[in-house]
Order: sequence, then C-alpha cells, then structure tokens
Amino acid sequence: MKGLFITLEGPEGSGKSTQASRIEKYVISLGIPCVRTREPGGTSIGNRIRGILLDPEAEEMKQRTEMLLYAASRAQLVEEVIRPALAAGKVVLCDRFVDSSLVYQGYGPQWDMDEVLSVNRIATGGLVPDRTYLLDLSVEESAERLVKRGKGVDRIEQKGEAFHRRVREGFLELARVHPQRYCVIDAAQPVDQVFEELRKDLDSYLKKRRASQRS
Amino acid sequence: MKGLFITLEGPEGSGKSTQASRIEKYVISLGIPCVRTREPGGTSIGNRIRGILLDPEAEEMKQRTEMLLYAASRAQLVEEVIRPALAAGKVVLCDRFVDSSLVYQGYGPQWDMDEVLSVNRIATGGLVPDRTYLLDLSVEESAERLVKRGKGVDRIEQKGEAFHRRVREGFLELARVHPQRYCVIDAAQPVDQVFEELRKDLDSYLKKRRASQRS
Repeated sequence: MKGLFITLEGPEGSGKSTQASRIEKYVISLGIPCVRTREPGGTSIGNRIRGILLDPEAEEMKQRTEMLLYAASRAQLVEEVIRPALAAGKVVLCDRFVDSSLVYQGYGPQWDMDEVLSVNRIATGGLVPDRTYLLDLSVEESAERLVKRGKGVDRIEQKGEAFHRRVREGFLELARVHPQRYCVIDAAQPVDQVFEELRKDLDSYLKKRRASQRS
Repeated sequence: MKGLFITLEGPEGSGKSTQASRIEKYVISLGIPCVRTREPGGTSIGNRIRGILLDPEAEEMKQRTEMLLYAASRAQLVEEVIRPALAAGKVVLCDRFVDSSLVYQGYGPQWDMDEVLSVNRIATGGLVPDRTYLLDLSVEESAERLVKRGKGVDRIEQKGEAFHRRVREGFLELARVHPQRYCVIDAAQPVDQVFEELRKDLDSYLKKRRASQRS
C-alpha cells in the first residue's frame, strides 16, 4: 500500500498537536507505521529556520522573506522526511503544511496568493496531502486558549485580531475549494469529541481507499 | 537622479570584494552616495540565513532548500536595503545577486532554471541590476587562489571541479544572453588592471545614463 499523507490545519490553540498525537497512537494500533512531524521545522535544518521565523525580535522581517523561509523549511521536510516515509508505505501526519502558508502569508495579510502558491509548488515538487483536517476555532476562543497556556507569544501570534479573522476565513475558504480533501471539525468541542470525529472520518477514508486500491 | 544598481558576479577568489571596495571609494569620490552589500547576508536576518547556508556540516541540505534560503535572504536584502537606497538616488554595489542563484543553484547542478528564475522574480519583486560586472576566472586559478587564502572551504566551495566548470560556463552564458547589462572582465589580470577596466566601463555607463536622463 502506498503511504497516506495527512495534514492538520487550524489556528494556534485549536489542538492540532494533541490530536496529532492521538491519531498517531490510533494509526499504530491499526498496525500501520506512522511518522509524525510539524512545520516549520521537522528536520535539523528546518528547526534552524524555525528559530529565525518565530523569533519575536525579528520584527524587520518582510512578507516575502517570511514566505520563502517557510517554503525552504518545507522543501527540506518534504525531501528528507515526507517523501521517503510515503514511499515506504507509512502514514505521515503533518502539523501544518502549504495551506498554512496560503492562509498566513497570502490570504491573512492580503498578499498575492498566486505567488505563495507558485513558490510552494516548487518547494514541495507538487506534493499535495491526501486528507486535511481543519480544526476550526473562533478567534476569541483561540486567543483565550493561548492566554491560558501562559506562554509568551511568537512573531506570528503577535499579529492583530483582524489578521487572525482573515486566517480563519482563509482556512474555511480552502475547505470550500477542496471539499474532497478537507474535513472540517469544530475544535471548540471537548478533546475526546474532536478525536472521535477525526477517527470516524479516517476510518471511512481508509476503507474507501483500500476498496479503490483493490479494484 | 534615480539610483544605480550594480552587481558583481564570478567565482570565489575572483576578487569581487576587493573590486567592490575600490568601486565604492571611486563612486564616493565622484560625490555619489554609495551602499555596498553582499549575498547571502547583508541584513541581520540575511546573516542568520547565511550561517545555515554556508555551514559545512549541513550536508543533508536539499537543492530546493538551498535555492529557497538564498531567495529568502535576497528578499530581505532587496526590501530592507537595496530598494530604499535606490529610491534615495544612491549607487548600490552588491557582491552576488540573482545570477549567482541561476548559476550555482540552476545551471551548475543542472537543475530546473525556470524554477530558480520564478522563485527569484518573486523574491526580488522583479528587480534587475542596471549593470553587472562578471569577474571571469578559470576553475584552476580560482582553486589556486582559495588554497593561497588558506581558509577552510564552505559548503558551496566543497562541490567538485565539474560543478565549478559549469558555474563558469553558466556565468558566461548569462553574459551572452544579456549583453546590454553585462560587462565581462578577465579577473586573472593584476588587481589594478581589473579595476581600471571596471572604472572605464562605469564612467562611460554613467555618462550615457546622464545623457539619456537629460534628453
């Protein structure tokens, strides 16, 4: 069986890493090898790039620089981790991928979406996830959860409320444009409930996939 | 007067920084303000990217990652340094620019030139130098000069002889394709002679430019 590439998208505080960890355990319990990773980062070079991207003191960073640094980290992750794992038939779970760039570097700041898309097509060599889970959460709820976490905010989280509203809109718009790939889940629900929806969708997706690969 | 954007290209050891320093002094002696910079780097963010790019231990770096990191450093340099200086009517002298990426990330490793060009058009917002000086040097002479310098070699310099032959070919090819912008100088000549050719060309270029701006 060819591997399966699953991405999790959504704002900070929407529970992406909690759910990724649960899905990972679940997939392994099915006897399928699973690789879990995240963006930006996921490789040694990617983590060095992540350090520049999230540094709250890099205030002078330009929109284009930010977009290209995300793409560079992604290029390394795709070639070093994701493609080899997929080729080995594994499930790859990635916390954020190209759609985050489209939304945070394109739609959110009202910048040229075609440029973000072109650069990312080149960065990934055209790799697209098989299934994307959008953990949708209101801007208010996301902000409240970040305050509760009590960590300092990074350079991206510092951007204002209007920006984060556009980010949410952008994700929902992508889900409308790619209904075959996207599954939208209300992340305001309790963690167990969110996972239950995810698991059900994943089960039915794996079933359909197996059927189509058999035929 | 609108600013003037001059780039220096050529292999390591061809004397780009020596000549940049001489041109800078000369331009200032003409009463024109001058900004001298280099790639990768030239900004605080760019220098952090440079650290990743030239680290001899980052052996696992993929072609796409390298190309995107150069583009990210360049995007920051263009918006933070080059465009403001040009808008203020200054001469900007840049040690390496997009052509180095075309040659080192595209032509040299025989990778897709269109992809390198697309990413760099986006990174620079389409900015093209007014004049490019290619300090042309044989692969043998370049290697000899690097040994004489006695420094360790960085990740790019480590690539083999066939790669560096293609780099030289690539620069000469760019000069043939853009004869209006390029001025090729034999960098095997003594430093003073190289500068004399550069200075003469720059003088005649400035003269023509003044005439066309007057008319």
